[in-house]
Amino acid sequence: MIRLAPLPASLPATVPFTGPETLERRLGQPFRARLGANENGFGPSPRAIAAMQAAVADVWQYADPTSHDLIHALSAHLGIPATHITVGEGVDTLLGNLVRLMIAPGDAVVTSDGAYPTFNYHVTGFGGVLHKVPYRDDHEDPQALLARAHDTGARLIYLANPDNPMGSWLDGRVIRAMLDDLPPGCLLLLDEAYSEFAPADALPQIAADDPRVIRMRTFSKAYGMAGARVGYAFGHLDLIAAFDRVRNHFGMNRISQIGALAALQDQDWLAHIRDQVAIARQRIARIGAQNGLTALPSATNFVALDTGRDGDYARALVAALEGQGVFVRMPGVAPLNRCIRISCGPAAELDILADALPRALATL
Amino acid sequence: MIRLAPLPASLPATVPFTGPETLERRLGQPFRARLGANENGFGPSPRAIAAMQAAVADVWQYADPTSHDLIHALSAHLGIPATHITVGEGVDTLLGNLVRLMIAPGDAVVTSDGAYPTFNYHVTGFGGVLHKVPYRDDHEDPQALLARAHDTGARLIYLANPDNPMGSWLDGRVIRAMLDDLPPGCLLLLDEAYSEFAPADALPQIAADDPRVIRMRTFSKAYGMAGARVGYAFGHLDLIAAFDRVRNHFGMNRISQIGALAALQDQDWLAHIRDQVAIARQRIARIGAQNGLTALPSATNFVALDTGRDGDYARALVAALEGQGVFVRMPGVAPLNRCIRISCGPAAELDILADALPRALATL
Repeated sequence: MIRLAPLPASLPATVPFTGPETLERRLGQPFRARLGANENGFGPSPRAIAAMQAAVADVWQYADPTSHDLIHALSAHLGIPATHITVGEGVDTLLGNLVRLMIAPGDAVVTSDGAYPTFNYHVTGFGGVLHKVPYRDDHEDPQALLARAHDTGARLIYLANPDNPMGSWLDGRVIRAMLDDLPPGCLLLLDEAYSEFAPADALPQIAADDPRVIRMRTFSKAYGMAGARVGYAFGHLDLIAAFDRVRNHFGMNRISQIGALAALQDQDWLAHIRDQVAIARQRIARIGAQNGLTALPSATNFVALDTGRDGDYARALVAALEGQGVFVRMPGVAPLNRCIRISCGPAAELDILADALPRALATL
Repeated sequence: MIRLAPLPASLPATVPFTGPETLERRLGQPFRARLGANENGFGPSPRAIAAMQAAVADVWQYADPTSHDLIHALSAHLGIPATHITVGEGVDTLLGNLVRLMIAPGDAVVTSDGAYPTFNYHVTGFGGVLHKVPYRDDHEDPQALLARAHDTGARLIYLANPDNPMGSWLDGRVIRAMLDDLPPGCLLLLDEAYSEFAPADALPQIAADDPRVIRMRTFSKAYGMAGARVGYAFGHLDLIAAFDRVRNHFGMNRISQIGALAALQDQDWLAHIRDQVAIARQRIARIGAQNGLTALPSATNFVALDTGRDGDYARALVAALEGQGVFVRMPGVAPLNRCIRISCGPAAELDILADALPRALATL
């Protein structure tokens, strides 16, 4: 009875992730610890909280559609001209708009098998053809990505550094070198959502006007504002300008725009968060070790714990943890899915994890 | 150097509207009265403000991607099943997603010449071909819209009721009757952003499972939350479900989701807003009359003031008002553009308008 256009008619009604609220409704009770979505339970800067609370009464106004103040603050922060930066409603929206700008139906896109499902959702959604290469030793594999891009004439390569869901990272020089080996007309999409947690040498030095790459970052992770939906992308002037052809110009939330600016201006809080996250990573590793699970090295705000078993086992463990009131997630494909993925959070939440994990394991 | 996909490569770098902040930066000073964007200066419900302020500290959490609680509250409010409702980041986002679902490149879409530019932006953005019919006596013209849809084999007709930018409205029975005359496979998109200000008989009675229409409403206008970006659409189950194929599942702002729920639950505040807006409409009409401008009847939170001259004159008046510190807008095409459009606001803002309007007119 409803006739959709051919492309959307061909799409599955998939959901990239099930939210914890849906799981809570299924379980009939709220989670005691929310450690599954790589949210940052340490929260945003108190200055950002105050700025957002003060902004609420003026929410009758639309946000500045140019995000002028935030983009200029990011320009100063990154040391690149404002014209090389665009702001969007979270990285997910920026990913969708980039795919829309770059990919015509049938175009090839290369990513890693097990990497960010929401990127894949957008590629499929705009008719792109996904080609996936395996991780190598729990790292995304630059040589395999490049080789597959050459084989398929890909228009876009997705690479997250640091990586989600494994927490691994590449040396920035390796990524910088990838640019010289890209097929003609192929863009490297560098998802740097976790960049604030990475060692300095993991972030490549790339000129602001390099047309071969676009980089995306977010206020959802280190800045603790996932629910505010603020991300940004930076790259070549012409590519950044092209977002204005498709983006939702009045799509930014006014409270979030103001909050992100305040968060960016509180780099002391960011340093505090980095310290807290490092402590939490060590604690998660210890909790894992006490229960026979091995923590993988992480440059993010989460830790992949290797069960030493397979995906079925890890899946059962995730479900058992849910039954204990602890929300975690796991990678989607083998061999990554031998792990469960636990987000860093405050000590009280990790206390609950420490209590729940042996109980969950005992049920398997 | 940057090679976009063919469709976006063909798009102009247009901006549907210039925001007041950009104008303020050009003018070198802030506006004294912000009456141009049909924002609601009376603001959101105090209960919504309190709920949003309380939600700020938890903004480290993503919003529920299913908007479960808000959709179920809307279900009760509208008296239709929750499965017939989808929530999005403002009506603009819902419009974009609907166009994406319905329109393949080359498909015909019918709207009124001078109606909502952001809808046109989305149609062009997805390769649709716009066909525009004139307003009739400052109203959108159902017969002309239907006739053009038949002539062009349109897949979609856009109709705003009440109308923006003229403030006019149609009888709900007229809209209901349009459904029986739609071409096969053509959907009526009913933009009801201003529905809460409309007389009851302007809103058509349409069954929740009617596959010929989709209706969109917002928290941006009567609920005073433009900067929060919350809109909703309701229609046939299958069409609503299709949004899950393309929407940004984690795109909702958590603070906004909570605020919209609180706003919906404060219908007393909505009634108060309706009263205040009615008072402001009368005041704007009086200010206009005192200056030789004629108010058109309005079922919205804005008033079109007829200058009795042409678009050049009205454009000069809008610029002169900006020079006096008053932000207003005007329709984009003749003959509608003989008018300027003034949003309702608190008495203090209308005092500034009353002071500025004769000064602005004196400069022409």
